[in-house]
Amino acid sequence: MGTCTMDDDVLMEVTRGDRIESSHRGAVAVIDADGAIVFETGNIDIPVFPRSAVKAIQALPLLETGAADQVGLTDAELALACASHSGEPDHATAAASMLRKAGRDSSCLECGSHWPLGVDAAHALAASGERPSALHNNCSGKHAGFVCTACVIGVDPEGYVGPNHLVMRAVTAALAEVTGTVLDAADHATDGCSIPAYAIPLRSLALGFARFGTGHGFGPARATAAQRIRAAVAAHPFMVAGTGRFDTELMTAFGARAFVKTGAEGVYCAALPDLGLGLAVKCDDGAGRAAQVVTATLVRHFLRPEDEPAASVLDRLARPELRNWNGTRVGEMRGTGPLLQLRDATVRR
Amino acid sequence: MGTCTMDDDVLMEVTRGDRIESSHRGAVAVIDADGAIVFETGNIDIPVFPRSAVKAIQALPLLETGAADQVGLTDAELALACASHSGEPDHATAAASMLRKAGRDSSCLECGSHWPLGVDAAHALAASGERPSALHNNCSGKHAGFVCTACVIGVDPEGYVGPNHLVMRAVTAALAEVTGTVLDAADHATDGCSIPAYAIPLRSLALGFARFGTGHGFGPARATAAQRIRAAVAAHPFMVAGTGRFDTELMTAFGARAFVKTGAEGVYCAALPDLGLGLAVKCDDGAGRAAQVVTATLVRHFLRPEDEPAASVLDRLARPELRNWNGTRVGEMRGTGPLLQLRDATVRR
Repeated sequence: MGTCTMDDDVLMEVTRGDRIESSHRGAVAVIDADGAIVFETGNIDIPVFPRSAVKAIQALPLLETGAADQVGLTDAELALACASHSGEPDHATAAASMLRKAGRDSSCLECGSHWPLGVDAAHALAASGERPSALHNNCSGKHAGFVCTACVIGVDPEGYVGPNHLVMRAVTAALAEVTGTVLDAADHATDGCSIPAYAIPLRSLALGFARFGTGHGFGPARATAAQRIRAAVAAHPFMVAGTGRFDTELMTAFGARAFVKTGAEGVYCAALPDLGLGLAVKCDDGAGRAAQVVTATLVRHFLRPEDEPAASVLDRLARPELRNWNGTRVGEMRGTGPLLQLRDATVRR
Repeated sequence: MGTCTMDDDVLMEVTRGDRIESSHRGAVAVIDADGAIVFETGNIDIPVFPRSAVKAIQALPLLETGAADQVGLTDAELALACASHSGEPDHATAAASMLRKAGRDSSCLECGSHWPLGVDAAHALAASGERPSALHNNCSGKHAGFVCTACVIGVDPEGYVGPNHLVMRAVTAALAEVTGTVLDAADHATDGCSIPAYAIPLRSLALGFARFGTGHGFGPARATAAQRIRAAVAAHPFMVAGTGRFDTELMTAFGARAFVKTGAEGVYCAALPDLGLGLAVKCDDGAGRAAQVVTATLVRHFLRPEDEPAASVLDRLARPELRNWNGTRVGEMRGTGPLLQLRDATVRR
């Protein structure tokens, strides 16, 4: 393969037969809620776009404003508000239900439409003769949550994706406070679903998720909101991703012990509440496959599976087999480089 | 973004707003038919799997054995024999036609089935209530060519994907001879379509495509076969890829002046016959988006577009805009690092 396999920051390699076919570099921060580093590799102080990995933090105002309770969102709907979902029927239905509870419909979603991320869901939609709507957008739950918040605090939802809309200001403030960063409304890019995208160092993202997982450093309202979101996602892991998706499989296996969330372009953020740890991963090349294997490798190191099914799920996610169209095993993906030194990473107790 | 942007072998970067969100490393070889290096970056002597990028070379025995003429393949079918096609109806129909001309049908294809690579084609197939067959496999044309060859030389096609089948031995021999490498039947991995995958250095791949584009160093039969394949692909660029695909768009714009072929896991090979050049690209992380931008950047440097439409296609392929689900421009992809020194690469005449 190419030119980087011996390099220090290669975190994941893809094999074919006995050779390394491709390799992925990146950076990782594992930090406790006091900011103490448990494991790091690569540069964790360069700002990166967390993208959808911070949806759970962006959902805090939905609870802190009382909007979730006032419109009567279920736990499944709370989980959807943190989702990058596959656009399966249950996802689209729940997004529509959230909007209905706010007295609105999908016409006020500003995320845009795309075919369901789930291939089977996309084919089923095509077979039904329907076209995708904004409800199928993987961010529709997050956006429905923004609409619920706007309606309850009494502002027009229109334009909620703008950085200066009252709802988006609350969302950005929550992200800044939880990660301990300054997010300048003038210094943002635009995300796939049109909300502002702010770049944040992995060190701050990991700290934010350590806090999100423990409530450490939060006021009572925020600590309760974070706890409710974690519990809702642990109870409904299907709603945050979908059939066969990494996040759903891992959280189905580990319940409340692991909160993991994918972001586009090779980002993962996670909280391991029992251990008081936050994790943040960025693969330089933006590859989701690499971020998943790295995240599963980290979770496998820090969390002991409680049963055989959980252990086998984690082994499969951390070292996936690659099979071709005839089902023949052609290679695998596996963590490497600095991840092989994880054994030296110890958690302060 | 991550840890590598300043590094020498970053070849492509993805921006979001004013920041680099992701970056891709890799190696490039641009070589003439005498083996003289015109441009190189990264390590071009490490063996890499070219995957589907060498399908045109693997199609040489189909012509050299006389099989293509004996069964009466059209130029469109010859192009399909070199294709990683999108599984659109014209592709599947042409593959079926090739098999029919050999007195066979899709039941003897050993490539396996998958949903069409073309999203619209996949949705249309799903809407029709059909399931994908081996004819929709992006390699079905190559495999149909193998079957035609077997039937004409009088061997049972069954098992043609095996390294020791007479057809596959001829295919491997052609690949070894054209690239000037030794390919040991014992030292191979397995490709997505189940044929052997051999690792070959970029230097040898680029040399092979310089020869493929010029016939330099080939005997008359091989030179004629290569010329016919290039002409067939130039006449039917849709057949080698599909609607909106990079290879189809670039070759539609440049005709016989550029032969480009994608391979899985971030590989591209190309021939620029007028200039006597062969190109080979491997992106370390296996990203097709990076290999495409790098290839378009190389083609843009070496080939002067003859008209405005060709120039604008090449500009779009070399520096694609990134737009979100609402059509808002959020960033771009562009060549960088060593590719900025391309101006120093001169072609010996």
